Amino acid sequence: MEDFEAIVGTDNVITADADMIPYLHDATGALKGSAAAVICPGSTEEVAAVVRLASKRALKVTVQSGNTSLCGGSVPRGNPDEIILSLRRLNSIRSVDAAARTATVDAGVVIETLQTRVAEDGLDFPLMFGARGSAMIGGALSTNAGGSNVLRYGNARELCLGIEAVLPSGEVIHALGGLIKDNRGYDFRNLLIGAEGTLGIITGAVLRLVPTPKVRATAFLALDGIDQALHVLNCLQDASGGQVEAFEWMPGVTVEAIRSVMPELRAPLEQTAETGILVELASTRASDAAMDESGEVALQTTLLSAIEGLMEEGGVIDGFFATSEQQRRDLWHLREATLEALVKLGPFVALDASLPLSRVPEFLSRADPLAEAARLRVLPIGHLGDGNLHYSVVAAEGHDWDPQRVAAFSSQVYDLLEDLGGSFSAEHGIGRSKAATLAKRKEPSQFALMRAIKASVDPQNMLGSGIFFPLET
Amino acid sequence: MEDFEAIVGTDNVITADADMIPYLHDATGALKGSAAAVICPGSTEEVAAVVRLASKRALKVTVQSGNTSLCGGSVPRGNPDEIILSLRRLNSIRSVDAAARTATVDAGVVIETLQTRVAEDGLDFPLMFGARGSAMIGGALSTNAGGSNVLRYGNARELCLGIEAVLPSGEVIHALGGLIKDNRGYDFRNLLIGAEGTLGIITGAVLRLVPTPKVRATAFLALDGIDQALHVLNCLQDASGGQVEAFEWMPGVTVEAIRSVMPELRAPLEQTAETGILVELASTRASDAAMDESGEVALQTTLLSAIEGLMEEGGVIDGFFATSEQQRRDLWHLREATLEALVKLGPFVALDASLPLSRVPEFLSRADPLAEAARLRVLPIGHLGDGNLHYSVVAAEGHDWDPQRVAAFSSQVYDLLEDLGGSFSAEHGIGRSKAATLAKRKEPSQFALMRAIKASVDPQNMLGSGIFFPLET
Repeated sequence: MEDFEAIVGTDNVITADADMIPYLHDATGALKGSAAAVICPGSTEEVAAVVRLASKRALKVTVQSGNTSLCGGSVPRGNPDEIILSLRRLNSIRSVDAAARTATVDAGVVIETLQTRVAEDGLDFPLMFGARGSAMIGGALSTNAGGSNVLRYGNARELCLGIEAVLPSGEVIHALGGLIKDNRGYDFRNLLIGAEGTLGIITGAVLRLVPTPKVRATAFLALDGIDQALHVLNCLQDASGGQVEAFEWMPGVTVEAIRSVMPELRAPLEQTAETGILVELASTRASDAAMDESGEVALQTTLLSAIEGLMEEGGVIDGFFATSEQQRRDLWHLREATLEALVKLGPFVALDASLPLSRVPEFLSRADPLAEAARLRVLPIGHLGDGNLHYSVVAAEGHDWDPQRVAAFSSQVYDLLEDLGGSFSAEHGIGRSKAATLAKRKEPSQFALMRAIKASVDPQNMLGSGIFFPLET
Repeated sequence: MEDFEAIVGTDNVITADADMIPYLHDATGALKGSAAAVICPGSTEEVAAVVRLASKRALKVTVQSGNTSLCGGSVPRGNPDEIILSLRRLNSIRSVDAAARTATVDAGVVIETLQTRVAEDGLDFPLMFGARGSAMIGGALSTNAGGSNVLRYGNARELCLGIEAVLPSGEVIHALGGLIKDNRGYDFRNLLIGAEGTLGIITGAVLRLVPTPKVRATAFLALDGIDQALHVLNCLQDASGGQVEAFEWMPGVTVEAIRSVMPELRAPLEQTAETGILVELASTRASDAAMDESGEVALQTTLLSAIEGLMEEGGVIDGFFATSEQQRRDLWHLREATLEALVKLGPFVALDASLPLSRVPEFLSRADPLAEAARLRVLPIGHLGDGNLHYSVVAAEGHDWDPQRVAAFSSQVYDLLEDLGGSFSAEHGIGRSKAATLAKRKEPSQFALMRAIKASVDPQNMLGSGIFFPLET
């Protein structure tokens, strides 16, 4: 450990059990590990030096930034030869270029910290999910995080214009040019994004920023069934010229379950909507923020009249319009309370399913009976606008939580997803929790290629051992 | 050859010199090669079988789709052990999902053919560049092609949701799910996009489609200097809520040179603009296509009033508004005539530079004197909205075209780009023409990683030998 201390300083090598606790369990509390030490380098050069030393000592390295992974992607395995490399001291916003609408940041910058900073320039970093107050850029990129605004701005991948990274060899890749067009050989930015720290450690990034919307229009809709969703979404996109920023599915069962443990949260509609949708439009055009002839904000009128049309058609049967920022916040607070509510209602498993939008109704009609048969209560929620459902389950009333039964149920749902052209991994990552699933379900030609690339880039299997590639034991 | 004939049929193995001609030279006519045969498989399975056979025989394979590369990316080297694998028979649009706004296509589909097909559904595939009438999807993805609409819709990379590809082993990767959120291990889609056929052969793709704009507003502006461009662009983005679809730099010297060899093309302004910009807004909103109070189409009014503001400020000094589709087409015809004009004015070299927008003025002020010193006449043009300049040169009047002098000049420009944080490869690719430049200028840590990945995926160096990695000879 002295050698690590020589690199990062004595205070930045944590070995005391009590001090390591926050680094050793995951965000849900369900996964725990142990490690020989937590090393906290303060610069890219220190990360490289730590990696070189770890390589020399044949140590395993688990990289951790905000430690909000839901898949065991940042918790150590617990072998004595393992260290945690924490990126939390790499927390500087290196620069913001307001005219070019980019920010260059360290990997340990908390997402919300960046958002607050660039708001000063009338800009936003539009990666929006519940954990943004503690999740960091490095983890968001390494897992290609998603969230609520993906249908408009893309995943973390699409928001990244360049990276800096330390390879297992200790060499550094500097690719922070931030150019929109740049084709100079293989695309390492995208190879490292979503690689969950198994091929290199992202230490810095150039991120795309967008102008803060001048106006938003937010509503909670009750749909006449989930099969109306794609039509409703396309109508709203057409009416607004593609300004739908969020299209979140909040079914009545889940809204009621959240409110059962968090009764201070307001119900969006008097009568619970079986198929609730939280929709938000946003525009950067001044004319959308202006009052129109009817004395209303133009974008609100756009949303309102589109929904009136849908109500006449019958696809939408009830609706609530947020007429104040507080009402808007209340809706989002309810949406983002899901994970906290599940933790209270748990044990739970949140299956992170992705589907073609047109197959969502069939998925639900086939998955729900599987849950019932497994004595599970489904509390789903989802970023429906991009086909991502968090199909979460807790024990059905009067039944125990049986991990084996849950695992069998998960496997049935994964079969179903495969059958419908979906994915068992949308935005939470693979981590260690889903490595066996990946090994089993990834197309063999692709999994073999993954192994070949991993072996060529990280021949010692130093980084993120057990992530993606199940341990032989 | 009989073995190849057994796979693809006798008619689809071309060995007669006369029949091979179209496959052996590039779009500019400058690069020529030779090959033992041109093999034209008709399905993904046939591509895989051809690759397996080529591997067994230790042949080199150059992949060709539309053969519009400007960098020798699809012309064979000319060794007797080399075959061309043409994708032209893989030309089926497999399916169009209008509700999901995706198309699944073979790699040999011509871009314009796809655009024409999806227009029937009110959709567009927004990859827009001069060669789209013969360039094919496979090549566009393999080079991560760009063009005029990148600032709104992204490069080819951002327009691709999934791929199918044949690996050097002959194994096939099927990743045509087309999901918006899908994280199941390493991102092979993005690794193969931009890999110029050196890691695998893309045989199919799922592509993003966008609704066809309901209205466009197009103008040609004279700016008071190139240093006004970023400000003008940001003002237009703000006024329109991000609806700028193209922002093309067409300097007076280039417009005049084009018209000197193609006098039938109209000049956009009576007085030639030193800093001309072709700008286009596009909207899918019905209200933008409607008449406003002044009796004008609303989006035209948006553009007009934004430009009036800029003229008052002084950044814009003259302008022409296209008031008919014909006038719009004339402007684009002039823009897209550049390559044809350069061929007539040639010999020429089109340096494919990418820069941070804020550094463009400095680049020009430093590059132009280098050209003058090298007895070269600069005829630049560029997708300025995304920082991509085609900095083309022909011999200055009264001077010869000296390839060595041109090469030295190119190298000076590349030094300058490096100094300004730019890239010598924006959207044309590396191919064989720029492989030595890549080897010299790519960060060593990154070039070594490229070599490692190439060696692990294609240990025989079968695919695209000489592309990216210069031949030892």
